[in-house]
Amino acid sequence: MSSSRTDTGRAPRGGIDRAEIPALVARVCAGERRAVAAAVTELERMSDAAPDLLKALHPHLGHALVIGFTGPPGAGKSTLVNAVISHARGEGRRVGVIAVDPSSPISGGAILGDRIRMTSALDDDDVFVRSLASRGYLGGLSPAAVRIIDAFDAAGFDLILLETVGTGQNEIDVAEVADVRVVISAPGLGDDIQAMKSGLLEIADILVVNKGDRPGSEQTLQQLAGALSIRAGIGIKPPVLKTTATSGQGVPELMQAMATVGDRVAALGSEARRRRRARYLIARAAADLVADRIKAGQGGALDKLADAVLAGDLAPSAAAAKLLKD
Amino acid sequence: MSSSRTDTGRAPRGGIDRAEIPALVARVCAGERRAVAAAVTELERMSDAAPDLLKALHPHLGHALVIGFTGPPGAGKSTLVNAVISHARGEGRRVGVIAVDPSSPISGGAILGDRIRMTSALDDDDVFVRSLASRGYLGGLSPAAVRIIDAFDAAGFDLILLETVGTGQNEIDVAEVADVRVVISAPGLGDDIQAMKSGLLEIADILVVNKGDRPGSEQTLQQLAGALSIRAGIGIKPPVLKTTATSGQGVPELMQAMATVGDRVAALGSEARRRRRARYLIARAAADLVADRIKAGQGGALDKLADAVLAGDLAPSAAAAKLLKD
Repeated sequence: MSSSRTDTGRAPRGGIDRAEIPALVARVCAGERRAVAAAVTELERMSDAAPDLLKALHPHLGHALVIGFTGPPGAGKSTLVNAVISHARGEGRRVGVIAVDPSSPISGGAILGDRIRMTSALDDDDVFVRSLASRGYLGGLSPAAVRIIDAFDAAGFDLILLETVGTGQNEIDVAEVADVRVVISAPGLGDDIQAMKSGLLEIADILVVNKGDRPGSEQTLQQLAGALSIRAGIGIKPPVLKTTATSGQGVPELMQAMATVGDRVAALGSEARRRRRARYLIARAAADLVADRIKAGQGGALDKLADAVLAGDLAPSAAAAKLLKD
Repeated sequence: MSSSRTDTGRAPRGGIDRAEIPALVARVCAGERRAVAAAVTELERMSDAAPDLLKALHPHLGHALVIGFTGPPGAGKSTLVNAVISHARGEGRRVGVIAVDPSSPISGGAILGDRIRMTSALDDDDVFVRSLASRGYLGGLSPAAVRIIDAFDAAGFDLILLETVGTGQNEIDVAEVADVRVVISAPGLGDDIQAMKSGLLEIADILVVNKGDRPGSEQTLQQLAGALSIRAGIGIKPPVLKTTATSGQGVPELMQAMATVGDRVAALGSEARRRRRARYLIARAAADLVADRIKAGQGGALDKLADAVLAGDLAPSAAAAKLLKD
């Protein structure tokens, strides 16, 4: 055990003793890299000690701003996140990154594997990157992400960047969990992207047209602004920015926009933001419970209800209420 | 009312009398285009007569094969669906199409608007296309799609093609509803697509690399085959096909693969397939119920539970169980 710990320079495989928690939390709060890695591992795997660890972290939370980066494939999210990391580091800010890889529950692991692309960040003690398998395309963001946010927050990271690869339930979840939602698009992604953006518009605090050096970026910007103008909801219209992540063009303006939204969010108080994340955890757990009940009802209660729905004797909503009641 | 009906050549705005149902169903079963349009409208809007209409359609179901087309943006789904329609018509088969547009619940309408692209189908009495707004990026496929499937089935359509634009919850839902799931990809869509495909692999009966005339299509094919080889689940490995929808290349092979999967599915019996769709309707309704309860609990019961979760006194799953119980 201890030799593998030294060999890999990574955290032990979870399972610390409860008695070790106070010391671990003190080291996490001091920003000690190895302690953060150990805490993250405990929380990711939801070890026996994890509930007590979360409780011990609780008094040390509330500093970090969580920024979600979502958007359609091909928009250059990863490159833009890297540019944001560099910029934040240039300002002396410490950055935690949670990168969500959709993985197949069937293959059991992330197909992308570890992300080598963040090599520049790997030599920097004030950037901590953790890749996290999602719960598959169907399952969405792992609740572990919310727990890891607490560890990063206690460790004094100023910014926590939550990046999804791909689309689907992950993006929806990231929108729920983040304090600031950045939706990234790019020119030339085709018609389907336009349709998708119309959905993502609902959740955006900031809209970014990346690959701003490509032809058509101005047109994409105008289309987004146009789509926004028919967003009927009250509230503040999100700014639409143009970036070129590869050159860094527009990234200072993005940082500024993130800070502006961050100030607005900070005014809500950190308890309100954390409560929102707790509500999200409960909602996800409730959805899981319902899914379990549906699975358990197959071949039995659920099939009988399904037959009644098929015969037109029962509305699906009435059948659902019955299923939840029993 | 009746004048607008004549003007647009479309169905009346719902609300037929129950006494009219037997006559309507007889006309639907005769494949009368206007009757199908009227029935679809009733079912889409879930009019007062809709439950009785569904019941009356019930004895006339079981013929159609429902084929879902999903995949990342830019893969050329729409063009491929058009090619499949042409091919099926060439074989004398009748085709119903349900095209799902993600729409913004905020703007209240489909941004894409009516799809003009299917003009060649519009002159053909044996192709019926209905665009359907999704329930937004967050909400997924409308349950109306499942009801419309029944109307198309009773009308004697051989194939019902269910196509999503964009990604997200829609795709997941289409996978649940369809008898045959075709997942479409294309070369040159970037790294994120690779990640997304790893999730879509789980639900595919047939994998298609479209835009087969583009450079890199062979490589994409190999990557998909490679990803499939680590799909550990039992069951039948989906075939990986190459198509060029614009020229029709590979479409006959796709039709053949769809027929093969269709035969396998038909062996399950139509009741089993319809029961699966009914289970899906119940599951969606249950999820809606839970979402309603969570919404209703905000500011009250849910916030108390969230605080207990934050303090580490309650696990999210225990909080969820409490929420569902009350």
